[in-house]
Amino acid sequence: MTQGFGLFGAGGRMGLAIAAAAREAGQPLAGGLGRTGAVFGPFEDAAALAGAAAALIDFSTPEALEGHLDAAIAAGTPMLIGTTGLGAAHQRLIDRAAERIALLPAANTALGVTVLAALVEQAARLLGPEWDCEILDMHHRHKRDAPSGTALLLGAAVHRGRGAGEAAGRDRLDRMAGGPREAGDIYYAALRGGSVAGDHLLVFAGEGERIELGHRAESRAIFARGALRAARWLAEGRAPGRYTMNHVLGLA
Amino acid sequence: MTQGFGLFGAGGRMGLAIAAAAREAGQPLAGGLGRTGAVFGPFEDAAALAGAAAALIDFSTPEALEGHLDAAIAAGTPMLIGTTGLGAAHQRLIDRAAERIALLPAANTALGVTVLAALVEQAARLLGPEWDCEILDMHHRHKRDAPSGTALLLGAAVHRGRGAGEAAGRDRLDRMAGGPREAGDIYYAALRGGSVAGDHLLVFAGEGERIELGHRAESRAIFARGALRAARWLAEGRAPGRYTMNHVLGLA
Amino acid sequence: MTQGFGLFGAGGRMGLAIAAAAREAGQPLAGGLGRTGAVFGPFEDAAALAGAAAALIDFSTPEALEGHLDAAIAAGTPMLIGTTGLGAAHQRLIDRAAERIALLPAANTALGVTVLAALVEQAARLLGPEWDCEILDMHHRHKRDAPSGTALLLGAAVHRGRGAGEAAGRDRLDRMAGGPREAGDIYYAALRGGSVAGDHLLVFAGEGERIELGHRAESRAIFARGALRAARWLAEGRAPGRYTMNHVLGLA
Amino acid sequence: MTQGFGLFGAGGRMGLAIAAAAREAGQPLAGGLGRTGAVFGPFEDAAALAGAAAALIDFSTPEALEGHLDAAIAAGTPMLIGTTGLGAAHQRLIDRAAERIALLPAANTALGVTVLAALVEQAARLLGPEWDCEILDMHHRHKRDAPSGTALLLGAAVHRGRGAGEAAGRDRLDRMAGGPREAGDIYYAALRGGSVAGDHLLVFAGEGERIELGHRAESRAIFARGALRAARWLAEGRAPGRYTMNHVLGLA
Repeated sequence: MTQGFGLFGAGGRMGLAIAAAAREAGQPLAGGLGRTGAVFGPFEDAAALAGAAAALIDFSTPEALEGHLDAAIAAGTPMLIGTTGLGAAHQRLIDRAAERIALLPAANTALGVTVLAALVEQAARLLGPEWDCEILDMHHRHKRDAPSGTALLLGAAVHRGRGAGEAAGRDRLDRMAGGPREAGDIYYAALRGGSVAGDHLLVFAGEGERIELGHRAESRAIFARGALRAARWLAEGRAPGRYTMNHVLGLA
Repeated sequence: MTQGFGLFGAGGRMGLAIAAAAREAGQPLAGGLGRTGAVFGPFEDAAALAGAAAALIDFSTPEALEGHLDAAIAAGTPMLIGTTGLGAAHQRLIDRAAERIALLPAANTALGVTVLAALVEQAARLLGPEWDCEILDMHHRHKRDAPSGTALLLGAAVHRGRGAGEAAGRDRLDRMAGGPREAGDIYYAALRGGSVAGDHLLVFAGEGERIELGHRAESRAIFARGALRAARWLAEGRAPGRYTMNHVLGLA
Repeated sequence: MTQGFGLFGAGGRMGLAIAAAAREAGQPLAGGLGRTGAVFGPFEDAAALAGAAAALIDFSTPEALEGHLDAAIAAGTPMLIGTTGLGAAHQRLIDRAAERIALLPAANTALGVTVLAALVEQAARLLGPEWDCEILDMHHRHKRDAPSGTALLLGAAVHRGRGAGEAAGRDRLDRMAGGPREAGDIYYAALRGGSVAGDHLLVFAGEGERIELGHRAESRAIFARGALRAARWLAEGRAPGRYTMNHVLGLA
Repeated sequence: MTQGFGLFGAGGRMGLAIAAAAREAGQPLAGGLGRTGAVFGPFEDAAALAGAAAALIDFSTPEALEGHLDAAIAAGTPMLIGTTGLGAAHQRLIDRAAERIALLPAANTALGVTVLAALVEQAARLLGPEWDCEILDMHHRHKRDAPSGTALLLGAAVHRGRGAGEAAGRDRLDRMAGGPREAGDIYYAALRGGSVAGDHLLVFAGEGERIELGHRAESRAIFARGALRAARWLAEGRAPGRYTMNHVLGLA
């Protein structure tokens, strides 16, 4: 790994945590770009950074994704995409780019969350849609999107576990509109406050009993370490395609 | 208490629980009305029930409140109002009626919730608005209003604890619209599922630490017992006015 | 099922809940014995009850187990064993009796707990013994054994998930003796108070993150319904052997 | 504050966190001693450190307390005592020393814990001993004492809230010995694992309902910042005596 990794979103909270984790691991990043240019390192734009890096790590904004993918494709450099708040159009961009390079979009890079998603999928399979599923996340006061990308990731695991069709249920963000619960749907709720790194809780509520499955992150360091682990895995020379944290952790 | 109590909303979940608790306590209700007339007992309408009862207990719907208040005033009978989902117009109706009879509007009649509200008020006073306040409730899948009336009751305790003016913060139900948290405001979230009788959690989130204050109800029986206790207290002959559970429990 | 079921421990909390659930299901029990004889029904001792029942349900005490097994064997009647606090000697009694009749020892008969045990086993397999495992239960103030039988059942699932040998860890009840945590071992803690039907929580604690897996029972009704479901399954004519709730629920 | 503070226990987890927090606050410590001498700064023993410091901070071991108190008395220097696991004999040492210098023994220096203790005391007063009180703490795998000093501090707040005599209840660590709960007593349980900075939960369990009051620390930084705040408060020139965090935070 003589080249080092390149970071987009280097001025943000996760960017700072990744740079710190890389220094602690004795593998400082090759360079980092923020909204207005280089945050550290000699690279002034995405093309230069992508050309020099063994792998790219993107924790910037949805709006910046397309430019970063273009630079990664041009340089043939794999990329971890940790940005949250991506929409359907962004997913199509990723799908198309994955025909040319290795991409790993991950709403959450913590080992524990990846394991939790596997447990959640199994729970949804065993319990079926008769057990109401509610998903709650809590994050610090500065987080802009709600629910969290990780909450949606866990909801997707519930849908997979329930199988295709109506039984899988729909994603619902409109609880506060009132009315009784729609059977089979998955509802999301979110708390924000203080400096919470990120907690998630799934509640499966049946008649007379509840199963609760959750994850607590103590600091952003676990996401940063997981992101570096994923970047190392990508830099080992992956074929073009779309990967998940399950591949990195050997769970797939 | 030779007369017994009269119940509005006798066909609903809470109504059934109150009738059962009254039987268990050896003081069966005098009568109960539902949406379409008598559910039990000889009284066919609100006027007849109000005229015969030592106190009234209303767990029906916001739409029915005005008629029940009119009947209570006409008969001079005090009334516990446990209906949730009341708006500002309903509060004005209660204020006006309280000039004539004793009224006790209580979003939650459990002893534990009344004590929790006192603790929450103190917590808000000691911590100030710098600690972000989030309020979460979980109830069964059939509950129609969100957040719960109890959640709003606990939020009102936070406002009181913080004092008047801007520092008290606003009530916010629009978390899912995204964007960063507005400092000082109180945000609500709600989960629904299964047969949960009612859980509430307040999170005060500061820099690096959280205080969590919560209540769990195992069944509707605690609300029913608390409602009967409040009705007995009202039936002891209270002056016209607007009372709270704090008066019943001797905390005010 | 013309015969009906027989109940040992009919005067206890779970016994009363089972008798009530059977009545609600329209299948009243054939008879129930307590510490000093018949609680309901015409049968005066274990032999008479076992001879008349399609299946037996035992929620009595560890001391009474041997006599109940003897009666069941003599009559050739299958038995669900829900008694908790059983030791190694009791397990050997069950193993020996299972050569003659169908037995289903279950520390917890709730669907949710059976599913949780499956999730816990998978979590332990994926996480390995590097994630410290702690198991907490909370029950009502009258419960005599600590930790709960369900807590130990969930611990056994962790041991299975980790595989055989040292990596599986030992069960530890001696936290309060102090000293640092022994790596790989499973520690138990227990809370008691009020009228809590039964909550369980497993914490898997890693470096910088935690996974929490839990179950909440709202009332004993879920255990009672699960016990009746298991008795019906046993009464369908099972071969001698030792079964689990996984068999009843089709998860095995 | 030209002199700076002196630290005992400078090589431990909390010691490192305090030194880091002091640097971040722009007020580096004057010196720090560990088990075998200076960890940083020019002072080789307790007497030298105490003579040079505006206030002392002790996060070492119970065994070392007496020597540190002697040095503090000789130099007339106030001291914050954050060491946990102190017994009755240590408390007597502190009482005696407090006749000569200002001392502040604090099992927990976080603002949130100090506020929680005030809430807990009020809850115990309002609820009375009929509500069973259970206290749970969770800390990282390396913590040696159980329950935590903070858990015992919160238990003391419950005793105060209940008032003197039998109603206050006894502290109990022997849950695992089995048997039913003793009415009125306070029971402790503890979890250990991973890198958890410190969570605490009090459960007040009544008939059919529970109140839960808790605190979560995200990192040791909040304890370190609180310890420095207490040291600054002590260094302002306090009269001899025994103080608490309530004095520092203006809650007393």
